[in-house]
Order: sequence, then C-alpha cells, then structure tokens
Amino acid sequence: MHITEDERTAVYKTIYARRDVRNEFKPDEVPQEVIQRILMAAHHAPSVGFMQPWDFLVIKDIKIKQQIKNEFIKANTEAAKMFNEKKTKEYKALKLEGILEAPIGICVTCDRTRNGPTVLGRTSIPEMDLYSSVCAIQNMWLAARAENLGMGWVSIIHNDALQRILNIPTHIVPIAYLCIGYVTHFRKKPELEENGWIERENLEKLVHFDGWGNQKYSK
Amino acid sequence: MHITEDERTAVYKTIYARRDVRNEFKPDEVPQEVIQRILMAAHHAPSVGFMQPWDFLVIKDIKIKQQIKNEFIKANTEAAKMFNEKKTKEYKALKLEGILEAPIGICVTCDRTRNGPTVLGRTSIPEMDLYSSVCAIQNMWLAARAENLGMGWVSIIHNDALQRILNIPTHIVPIAYLCIGYVTHFRKKPELEENGWIERENLEKLVHFDGWGNQKYSK
Repeated sequence: MHITEDERTAVYKTIYARRDVRNEFKPDEVPQEVIQRILMAAHHAPSVGFMQPWDFLVIKDIKIKQQIKNEFIKANTEAAKMFNEKKTKEYKALKLEGILEAPIGICVTCDRTRNGPTVLGRTSIPEMDLYSSVCAIQNMWLAARAENLGMGWVSIIHNDALQRILNIPTHIVPIAYLCIGYVTHFRKKPELEENGWIERENLEKLVHFDGWGNQKYSK
Repeated sequence: MHITEDERTAVYKTIYARRDVRNEFKPDEVPQEVIQRILMAAHHAPSVGFMQPWDFLVIKDIKIKQQIKNEFIKANTEAAKMFNEKKTKEYKALKLEGILEAPIGICVTCDRTRNGPTVLGRTSIPEMDLYSSVCAIQNMWLAARAENLGMGWVSIIHNDALQRILNIPTHIVPIAYLCIGYVTHFRKKPELEENGWIERENLEKLVHFDGWGNQKYSK
C-alpha cells in the first residue's frame, strides 16, 4: 500500500505536534469509539514474535484516580528531594500530571508470560516484551494526537502502587499510566524546553556513521 | 494545531500498514535527506524529563553488516534450540532479518547518564530512559512507513556483540538494530500472523475497566 506525499506530511505533522500534556486537559467526555480507535492503534504496534504482551486498563472512576493521585504525591515528594537546591525550587513549581483533570486514565501493562515460555525474537534480549508495550504506547500517543486528544505519561509513581490500586497480577508489569483528554491547546514546544528546564539536543551530535564517534556532520 | 479528518485517516493508514520487514528489501539507495527526516522524527519522540537519551548509528559499510550478521547467526543457532521439536522446524524455516539486504542499518541506543544524575520523571521508575529510546524507535518506524520504507527490528543478537562491533561505550545501552530500505511490497498482515505462528489477540480480551479483570466487553 502506497503512502502519498500528503499522507506522509500528515504523519510528520502529527509527530511534530504531539506533546506530553499535564496542564491543558478539559473535562469534556471522550466518546467510547474514539477510545476504541486509539486502543486499536496501540494493538497494531509491532511486538516481539507477535507476542502482543499488552493489556489496557481504562480508568474513569474518580475514586481510583484519587488513589493514583495520592501515590503520585508521595512519589513526587521523594523526587523533589533528589535535585540540587536551585533545581528543587524549579521542580516544585512544575505541574507534572493531570490525573484528576483528564477524563480518562489508561494503564498499559506487559504480560511477560504471554505466548511463552519461549518467544521468537526474545531469546537474546529478554526486555523485548517491555519494549513492545512501549511501542504500543507510542502508537496510542500519535493516534490520540491525530484525534486532537492530549496525552501525558505519569512516571512519578511506584509500580507496586499501580499494581495494588488496579488489582494487577504480580506477573504483569505496569509500563505506563497515561492521562488522556481534550485540551485547551497544544503547546508549540515541549513544556520542559519552553520553560528552560533542558534544551533540545542538536540531532547532528547524536548521529554516528558506521560506528560510535564517527560524526561526519560535525566535521 | 488542529489535525483534520483526512490527516487523522493518513495517520491510521500508516499505523495499520506498518510491518516488521525481513524478506522484501530492495538494494535501492535511500537518499540522505530521507534518512535525515526519519531520524528527525525519532528525535521528536517523547522522553522522560526531556532527557533525549538516544543516539543513532547509521550503518552502510558491508563489512560491519557482515559482522552483525555473523552475530545474528550465532544467537539464532542458540535460539532455535529453545523451542519444542515441532516449533524448532518451523522456526528454522523463517527468515528473521534482512541485515545484508537492507541498504541501511540503524542502531538506536540509550545513554543512561545523559542530562543526569537526577532526571525529572525518572526518580520512581529507572527504566523510563530505555522506554524513551523505544518511543523514538516507534516514531522512526512510522516515519519510515510514511516514506514507503520498510523497517525491521533485529532482536536476535546479544547487546555486547553490538557494543563491540560498533564501538559503543559501556555506559550506553543498545536498544535496537534496525534494517531499513525500500521494499518490493508490504505484506497485508504481520508475517507471523500470515504464516500461522501466532494468532492476533482479540482486543476486547485485553481491555479492562477501572481495574484488572473487569471486562465489560466480554459480558
């Protein structure tokens, strides 16, 4: 199947317009068929040996969201102490999640036993199953953006807390808790770039030819 | 920035038409500006704390590809022994990589020390940096598909072999060795689904509501 130039442009537009959203969620309901479409896009991610190790927990219950938020607050209090004095002050001023504001939460997991015990392509690098679930998340992120939905990844939370709150069996690994909803606007740049937390790296410095350190671009 | 309905359709078309390619590579040269576009798309993936932990090693030298192929053969010989008798025979009949046929190889890595020592959002889940590099890979995969380029992930190889062959420093983790090139055609379905290795899971069985096991769809 051929992808046309216009279609290619649309894919790049979506990739460049995607943001990690924490601040701009609106309470507007997200139709079930839209959720279904972004989950189906996630389900069509690549996976090692066609293992499809993912599950998707869709969270709408405010009581569950509040428990997740409480665990974020705990983990974030620990986190704030890890930076140096100047950065700690900046850190505390950042809003890093939209757990209660986003109408939908989605927890994506990885079942390390699915289609096992031996999975084609996972024999040398056992982490390949975790990476497959991450590919599903990135498909979902771009599908959400294509639906003009914002999405944010809440990583400041302990996996055992997610497992307990969401009744996830112990052999299933939580990979991400994602907040999803319509937004007031999408920022032009990543928020941490906009506010000067870290600058964007120069791509030329990250590309090597035929071996590490051979960077023709920079010569 | 608003994504239109046509643009959304193009994104979904690309997601559904993407394949893990091993068999269909053509030797045709891939223009440098096309490689540059897919790397720039990768570089605009989400990353924890805007850490951007990735590097990209672009491999064109046939001598290096041959070394990588040799390491694949070793790892694949080990792998073939891990399946039961029936599956081993099927396994050996599969072509699982296009290392020598694809004009371009790209190794994507993760620098676990970048923008460290403390990275925002990586304080509770240290694997978040690895996951960021995987998000870059999935962006690259969709960008490649949008360029009508095939891509395949070679996971049957040991990371220490990749590190040695490509001179990758020990604190940098190889995440993927990818084969990229134009193709004779894209398969309608994933190869492992087409040839009956594993069936596609039913999405309904993978979606839970407000907690593990609550699967309204299946009621």
